[in-house]
Amino acid sequence: MVEDATVVALADKATSGDHRAIGRLISLVENGGDGVRQVARALPVSDRRARVIGLTGSPGVGKSTTTTALVTAYRKAGLRVAVLAVDPSSPFTGGAILGDRVRMQEHATDPEVFIRSMSSRGHLGGLAAATPQTVRVLESCGFDVILIETVGVGQAEVEIAGLADTTLVLLAPGMGDGIQAVKAGILEVADVFVINKADRDGADATFRDIRAMMALITREPHEWRQPIVKTVAHRGEGVEELTEAIDKHRDWLAEHGELDRRRRERAKTEVTAIVLGALARRFTVTDDLSARVAEGEVDPYAAADEVLQG
Amino acid sequence: MVEDATVVALADKATSGDHRAIGRLISLVENGGDGVRQVARALPVSDRRARVIGLTGSPGVGKSTTTTALVTAYRKAGLRVAVLAVDPSSPFTGGAILGDRVRMQEHATDPEVFIRSMSSRGHLGGLAAATPQTVRVLESCGFDVILIETVGVGQAEVEIAGLADTTLVLLAPGMGDGIQAVKAGILEVADVFVINKADRDGADATFRDIRAMMALITREPHEWRQPIVKTVAHRGEGVEELTEAIDKHRDWLAEHGELDRRRRERAKTEVTAIVLGALARRFTVTDDLSARVAEGEVDPYAAADEVLQG
Repeated sequence: MVEDATVVALADKATSGDHRAIGRLISLVENGGDGVRQVARALPVSDRRARVIGLTGSPGVGKSTTTTALVTAYRKAGLRVAVLAVDPSSPFTGGAILGDRVRMQEHATDPEVFIRSMSSRGHLGGLAAATPQTVRVLESCGFDVILIETVGVGQAEVEIAGLADTTLVLLAPGMGDGIQAVKAGILEVADVFVINKADRDGADATFRDIRAMMALITREPHEWRQPIVKTVAHRGEGVEELTEAIDKHRDWLAEHGELDRRRRERAKTEVTAIVLGALARRFTVTDDLSARVAEGEVDPYAAADEVLQG
Repeated sequence: MVEDATVVALADKATSGDHRAIGRLISLVENGGDGVRQVARALPVSDRRARVIGLTGSPGVGKSTTTTALVTAYRKAGLRVAVLAVDPSSPFTGGAILGDRVRMQEHATDPEVFIRSMSSRGHLGGLAAATPQTVRVLESCGFDVILIETVGVGQAEVEIAGLADTTLVLLAPGMGDGIQAVKAGILEVADVFVINKADRDGADATFRDIRAMMALITREPHEWRQPIVKTVAHRGEGVEELTEAIDKHRDWLAEHGELDRRRRERAKTEVTAIVLGALARRFTVTDDLSARVAEGEVDPYAAADEVLQG
């Protein structure tokens, strides 16, 4: 347990741009427990709003490269940028991947760029709760753009991507991506499709696949139609078109009251995750009960009733 | 709501091998609510145990092809086989992917093979609760082998893979798979590694990557050491070695009491998911509270306390 005064001092330093202090605040959020509440209390209540941009897609499509290219673009525009790389927790890696940092190296010494890998270890409510809180820390610390890079295409990743104002779904040619996007249920979280490695064979086929999938969805005239942007991120190609597409989406969000709606939705997800995390600690399934279910002595629904009746 | 008598009649037909009846029971499980309990009650309590084999890995590594090859191998051995393809729910697809069925077509007319795509729509507790219940239906219906194919490498997928007795983690050369496996936190769920498309360049590098990762883990002498099997599933190459590796793992499980331990663990996951699903319905976050959190009027932890105090 950290002293309240320590957390307040950290929050002071962090809001003045001290990266180590920002990092320590995020660690407190990640570690869960009382520290999270202390951080929540210590941060100034603020209606400062950063642009939160999610990047998601299968391994190998070039998420980190695209993230790096976006950091370069936003830095050129004079904005302060934070990057959160979200990894499912792994006991072997602690969720910290050296490679991500190596790729971002060109920005590592820029004091206006903050880079952080996140893991879900320990956090009450998992990443779904830790990520919004971390976004709040970064907003309070004055970052203008927050890029959240999520690994993989699973359910948790989709959820986290859903926290962003604008979610980019990255695909690459020749990976069966059309089907893969549908399979992962990721189509519905995409605000902008990015076909990275667009100089490779099959980019046009991937483009047509996405278009064909989109054609299956009926939309009202006022609804957002996801643009498809082609990039070759490691050469910076298409990145300007990508930032334009992100800007357009943000304008659309603001015009249609969607920015507020999404933020309320995000708050709901966050609070729900915290609530369920607390309840999971309170209502535990005993080893004895598990054994009885495994032996077929009691059906799992009857067992759940037992737990709920406490 | 279906009549109890209807569910009992369905269970009768299903246990005699009627595929349509099996399908309807699984739909009841998927749809959640009282139907699940009815199914649980209607099925004979049985200590029949199928071999439950999970297949997981990134999109494009050849999970469906490998599944198909395993079905062929187990059918040759005279076993009855069920396949569950687990897709995160998508409102656009309903979780049912035509492609999976097309690929499995050669088995589609075999009455001893049952194939099913699953989605999480509606189910109290999501896929983590629906899948074990579905496995139970299939066990009661006399299937000897149940293959669970999960899409993607996310947290939910890892959880579902963990339901299996033996989990195969599939990789393919040239997809940065080494890193991708670690990133996805999937290393720890692997009982057998499969390098599919092993005729491609880079198969040896992938092999070395996995070996290098495994070398980082200290193991007791009695612990299982994951074998690495190379396959070219669409030509059936390496499939015999794969089934041998699965058999060996099963023997190891039985010898070390792990089969029972895993089943208890699985029951615990299942009951916990049902409990949390029920609690999530009971403790809901109101729109008003979400708005206050979004506006910064109340911090999310204080909001969670409000919800928990009801």
